[in-house]
Amino acid sequence: MVHRAFGMVSGKPQELGEVWSKPLSGLFAPRSIALIGASGTPGSVGEALLRNLEAYGGALFAVNPHHRSIGGTKVFPNISSLPKAVDLAVIATPAPTVPEVLRECGRAGVGAAVVISAGFGESGPRGAELASECLSAARAAGIRLLGPNCLGLMVPRLQLNATFAGGMAAPGGVAFLSQSGALCTAVLDWSLRENVGFSAFVSVGAMLDVGWDELLSHFDDDPETTVILCYMESVGAARRFLTAARRASQRKPVAVLKVGRTGPASKAAASHTGALTGTDAVLDEAFRSAGVLRVDTLSELFNLAELASKQPHPRGPRLAIVTNAGGPAALATDALVAGGGRLAELCVHAVELLDKRLPTQWSHANPIDILGDASAERYAAAMEVVADSPETDAVLVILTPQSMTQADQTAEVVCRLSKTTPKPVFASWMGGEMVAAGRGILNAAGIPTFDYPDAAAAAFAQLSRCRERLGVCPGDPMDGDGVSLFSTEKTAVEQLLSEACRSGRRLLTNVESAQILSAYGIPVLETRVAQTEDEAVSQSEALGFPVAVKLLSETHTHKSDVGGVRLDVASPEEVRGAWRNIRDSLTLAAGPDGFKGVTLQPMVKREGYELILGCSRDPQFGPVVLFGTGGALVEVYRDTALGIPPLDRAGAKRLMERTKIGAALGGVRGRPGVDLSALETAIMRFSRMVLEQPLIEEVDINPLLASASGLVAIDSRMALHLEQPPGSLASGAAGTPHRNGSTIDEAPFQQPPACGERVFEHPGRAV
Amino acid sequence: MVHRAFGMVSGKPQELGEVWSKPLSGLFAPRSIALIGASGTPGSVGEALLRNLEAYGGALFAVNPHHRSIGGTKVFPNISSLPKAVDLAVIATPAPTVPEVLRECGRAGVGAAVVISAGFGESGPRGAELASECLSAARAAGIRLLGPNCLGLMVPRLQLNATFAGGMAAPGGVAFLSQSGALCTAVLDWSLRENVGFSAFVSVGAMLDVGWDELLSHFDDDPETTVILCYMESVGAARRFLTAARRASQRKPVAVLKVGRTGPASKAAASHTGALTGTDAVLDEAFRSAGVLRVDTLSELFNLAELASKQPHPRGPRLAIVTNAGGPAALATDALVAGGGRLAELCVHAVELLDKRLPTQWSHANPIDILGDASAERYAAAMEVVADSPETDAVLVILTPQSMTQADQTAEVVCRLSKTTPKPVFASWMGGEMVAAGRGILNAAGIPTFDYPDAAAAAFAQLSRCRERLGVCPGDPMDGDGVSLFSTEKTAVEQLLSEACRSGRRLLTNVESAQILSAYGIPVLETRVAQTEDEAVSQSEALGFPVAVKLLSETHTHKSDVGGVRLDVASPEEVRGAWRNIRDSLTLAAGPDGFKGVTLQPMVKREGYELILGCSRDPQFGPVVLFGTGGALVEVYRDTALGIPPLDRAGAKRLMERTKIGAALGGVRGRPGVDLSALETAIMRFSRMVLEQPLIEEVDINPLLASASGLVAIDSRMALHLEQPPGSLASGAAGTPHRNGSTIDEAPFQQPPACGERVFEHPGRAV
Repeated sequence: MVHRAFGMVSGKPQELGEVWSKPLSGLFAPRSIALIGASGTPGSVGEALLRNLEAYGGALFAVNPHHRSIGGTKVFPNISSLPKAVDLAVIATPAPTVPEVLRECGRAGVGAAVVISAGFGESGPRGAELASECLSAARAAGIRLLGPNCLGLMVPRLQLNATFAGGMAAPGGVAFLSQSGALCTAVLDWSLRENVGFSAFVSVGAMLDVGWDELLSHFDDDPETTVILCYMESVGAARRFLTAARRASQRKPVAVLKVGRTGPASKAAASHTGALTGTDAVLDEAFRSAGVLRVDTLSELFNLAELASKQPHPRGPRLAIVTNAGGPAALATDALVAGGGRLAELCVHAVELLDKRLPTQWSHANPIDILGDASAERYAAAMEVVADSPETDAVLVILTPQSMTQADQTAEVVCRLSKTTPKPVFASWMGGEMVAAGRGILNAAGIPTFDYPDAAAAAFAQLSRCRERLGVCPGDPMDGDGVSLFSTEKTAVEQLLSEACRSGRRLLTNVESAQILSAYGIPVLETRVAQTEDEAVSQSEALGFPVAVKLLSETHTHKSDVGGVRLDVASPEEVRGAWRNIRDSLTLAAGPDGFKGVTLQPMVKREGYELILGCSRDPQFGPVVLFGTGGALVEVYRDTALGIPPLDRAGAKRLMERTKIGAALGGVRGRPGVDLSALETAIMRFSRMVLEQPLIEEVDINPLLASASGLVAIDSRMALHLEQPPGSLASGAAGTPHRNGSTIDEAPFQQPPACGERVFEHPGRAV
Repeated sequence: MVHRAFGMVSGKPQELGEVWSKPLSGLFAPRSIALIGASGTPGSVGEALLRNLEAYGGALFAVNPHHRSIGGTKVFPNISSLPKAVDLAVIATPAPTVPEVLRECGRAGVGAAVVISAGFGESGPRGAELASECLSAARAAGIRLLGPNCLGLMVPRLQLNATFAGGMAAPGGVAFLSQSGALCTAVLDWSLRENVGFSAFVSVGAMLDVGWDELLSHFDDDPETTVILCYMESVGAARRFLTAARRASQRKPVAVLKVGRTGPASKAAASHTGALTGTDAVLDEAFRSAGVLRVDTLSELFNLAELASKQPHPRGPRLAIVTNAGGPAALATDALVAGGGRLAELCVHAVELLDKRLPTQWSHANPIDILGDASAERYAAAMEVVADSPETDAVLVILTPQSMTQADQTAEVVCRLSKTTPKPVFASWMGGEMVAAGRGILNAAGIPTFDYPDAAAAAFAQLSRCRERLGVCPGDPMDGDGVSLFSTEKTAVEQLLSEACRSGRRLLTNVESAQILSAYGIPVLETRVAQTEDEAVSQSEALGFPVAVKLLSETHTHKSDVGGVRLDVASPEEVRGAWRNIRDSLTLAAGPDGFKGVTLQPMVKREGYELILGCSRDPQFGPVVLFGTGGALVEVYRDTALGIPPLDRAGAKRLMERTKIGAALGGVRGRPGVDLSALETAIMRFSRMVLEQPLIEEVDINPLLASASGLVAIDSRMALHLEQPPGSLASGAAGTPHRNGSTIDEAPFQQPPACGERVFEHPGRAV
């Protein structure tokens, strides 16, 4: 895969042509390092960094204008005095000095920098200014920057420890990326006890330059990395994160622990969709669509690290459990099944073998309960059979300390077995002191150990679910929606929207929104406008009775809330009555000037399903499409699912499948199914509309009536984004991200930057 | 509270009158013990028991016909040769000998027995026979029996260890009851490491006699017990469990880890209700209604033990978090809020104090982030303020090992603080070796420690939710439902049901079920039967057009599935057409003999909400009431909740509130609310009906149409239980459990015993 046609080696932008390159190699595989702010003061950050960096194989230069040498190491007064160019600068000088240090680095040809120093964006306006200066300096010089305000990074297999932590991680397959430096120190300490190894250990800091997307891409390409685990506080450049995550998750498991799930997320919404689309729900959907496993707790993240780092990844979800106690195995089974895994079935052959080797009272099924008096030998006999079975993808061994139990010998048996099978083997030695030595034996041999058997099974289920994702390739969402036919009308839509915007109207009338939907090929119910009572009668007569009479409003989105809807109006007299009722209701609610007339529609015989199709804009991810059960009770049932556009036919199908009503649309209990193909097409067209028309901030089509004979939008409301976002397609801006085969980056969408997020495109990206 | 008017002291049934007594005191506070099957063989169960029991303060007699003495201890040949009567026999002899041993015990006046021996119900028909003999022997002699096939029991504060485990639990407040002996050994070992103390440690075994209900009652009354934790594989006598749990949970937290959540639970159901009522869902509702906290994982159970055993219980849900890192505190906050707790707000006074004592960059809010360089002293300063604050119910202290961190000294500070505040204080020292010593200090001082801060916050949230339950007193469900007015018709209902049963019909016609509902005061739509085409016309004319024509069937419950429903039939000609259509559809589906005619109902203008009110019978808990969104899509939306009858008005209200539609019934988005009082009454009456009429196995009222003007059952189906369950009210059987003030025990319901469950009433129960 081509990452950049424009690479950076040692900070010098070079035309590399279409070649493989690793833009972050200056950070993670530098040939030489300068430590700026090196110190000899015990307990200082500069001293800890120097001590840690000294183990590195490449050249290391200490820089500090106040020292000539530290503990025998020569110290240079500044970067420009170094005898040769360096790849990586590790900067631990006071925040106000960092912009100048970066400029010096640029002049000296440094390609990458880790800024450990704090005192930037997190500490007020002066700090934010400093951060901005740092970024400008780095950008101008083509320096890739990790941090600031971070613990640094480690690459254990290279003995590279560019952190001020009090230890070095063990080498292994986990790339751990954390937005909390303190969490890094805790995880590091824990990993040493648990013998978990890392391909890299990265404290990402404030993500001024290098963010989630590039880190994911880097470790996606890193062959030493077998699993990527992230602790995330903010998603940063959301769409770019998605693109990178979507690609990485096709090759290796990517799990994220994202904090802030339960934060307050209330906002004033102009639509049902807006009310139903919480920030965390969008994030959930984004992760899901990108194949990222979202975990809820630190223990889940740690358990994944334990399992994924030490053993081969499971090839499937079928777990065999060997145990000397039924209860703990039952707990593990519950957790396994709840997590989407399943018990391996024992084939006849395996049962026969086990019958020969085990006492007659063994469970004769999986979990394989080999009874409370099981010796190490009996464990070995059972484990061999199940590990050999083609029905088994992994083996969990559970041990409880009973009177005959050989906790240590059994641990040795497990270690031996795991060397003879390509399948993952993991263990739960339950208890405290009685099993501590056995646990130690397992840990030392690289067998994942879990205090709780149910946690072990849950981690296995999660990892095997990641496996399902690998190799999945999404289709092209812009294919075959037939919208290209409507290109002429698109201009009319843009005109209508711009005019409404210019006149400062946030809400379109239902007639206008129907026009827009219609232009995008979404079937709408014929809707006529009447601005006088007589006109209402004549239009009704033209439509044919009965009709629906609804308030025509530029201000009220939920018309039924203000008594603005009259259905089944069957005669001219009733039309006049409805006109007056609606007028009076609105006058009561909004004063005499609010009433502009009514709309008239033929009454639809409401057979079929009332659905909702909507869109709102998330500050991080941009437009989000909502589909589900519509009607007046949409916010009561909340039977909806979210999709991030563009949505192709498969994406539209999956969106529908994730709702309860989706299961009924194919036909249920004698009711005919709906025209699913028409529905999918409408979702695809709608998805295109919200991408192409960034002026549309929120839309509800509710109800969208779907039946066997087709579908029709009965009613809709649209709210506009009065300030046009920068870089939208409508404004013809450039800035479409580089094409890298991802469906998301090809979307002609770019959201306005959210507060406090990374807002600059790195120049290296502008292909 | 009076437990028995009939007590047992040292096994001699004695008339005690209405006094306080502890029926299980023979098990948990025996004055003297006989160990039957004592042994000197190292590694044997009899030897381990003897060694463990020797620490007990009361008299101990070893019994074994094959020995005269063991290690200097005199051994008696049998019970009758003991010098005095004993309270408790601990029996560890081979299974076939146990019935006779129990008979001997009975003759010798033994009051209670723990049967350690295995080889009973779990090992085939001969074992089951032995179990039955044991029970008969125990019942005949008035012996209360724990087990068989168990590890035994411990009461640490009395130094009573009647188990063959390799250690003794520490004394404390946790009553741990486990259906898995092996789990007991693991928990015991773990508890010694974690310094968790127990009021009792009980391996319940096969629960031949003493089951969950009596154990819960015992530890409810035990002042040393502050929390009851159960590991459960089967609920046993379900209704009695509920009664005991409901009472106990009003005084102390009761948490249950129940395995088998994800087991296969498919069954053929004759109703929507049956299809929607899984065994595990019923158990969930049963636990919920009894105030039992159901936990999902072993770690949750352990974390609860850690928190509940070591510190005072929280008086509310408001947690203060003091931390030296933001990320871990954010994780804890997420878990806290997700679990139903909340962050304590800092009052102005507290903020002022903290401003004085902390560096200016502190977080100025809860979580109180005292920064990465926090010393033990700074922790102390912050903790004192928040522990003193009236806004705080508990304090969680989080520590990550950073370069300036004083893990051990900070632990000592926490220990000191916890002695000066009546509020719970707990800690998460994150990491491995760097925090191990600090963790040890906390553990030794009885400060709960958690590896993960989010797990700590989750445990706190759970415990504080238990707290909400304490002291709650349910009302009388039989009060004020007005059903007594219908006592005459009840006889007619019973007649109708018995006759249908006698003729072997499993399904009632919709006319019959409407009659029964009507007899219980539930409004039903007028329904007429027509057995000929002409009759259908004349009945329709009598009702007035339009009408609904529906199949009259004793075999098909879901009429629309077989084309058996025609709505809006507007003329005599259309009635004839509908008659023929329905007849032809049924003939196609079921052959020419199936068609018995149609029913006719006036068409209801479908305003209001389509609800479902149903009942099915759970094998463990008996009748279960289901309420929720009805209509044809009931199984699609699954917006339903379960209630265990009897349901009083408050119970009916809570049942409705637990559905999504429940939130809409009060009125939403301009739609009028429904007559909630009428709906509650209908639920109460329905609940009474299913209790009083055990022949009714499943019922659906669907739709039950509810509007502002009232409610009416449009359609209903009832399936009968063809074998009349024993002990039902209809059969006038005795066996109503003793009255103890509980609403559940007063219910005139007793379900048939489930396979493998405890099936006998203990004679001590027959008051």
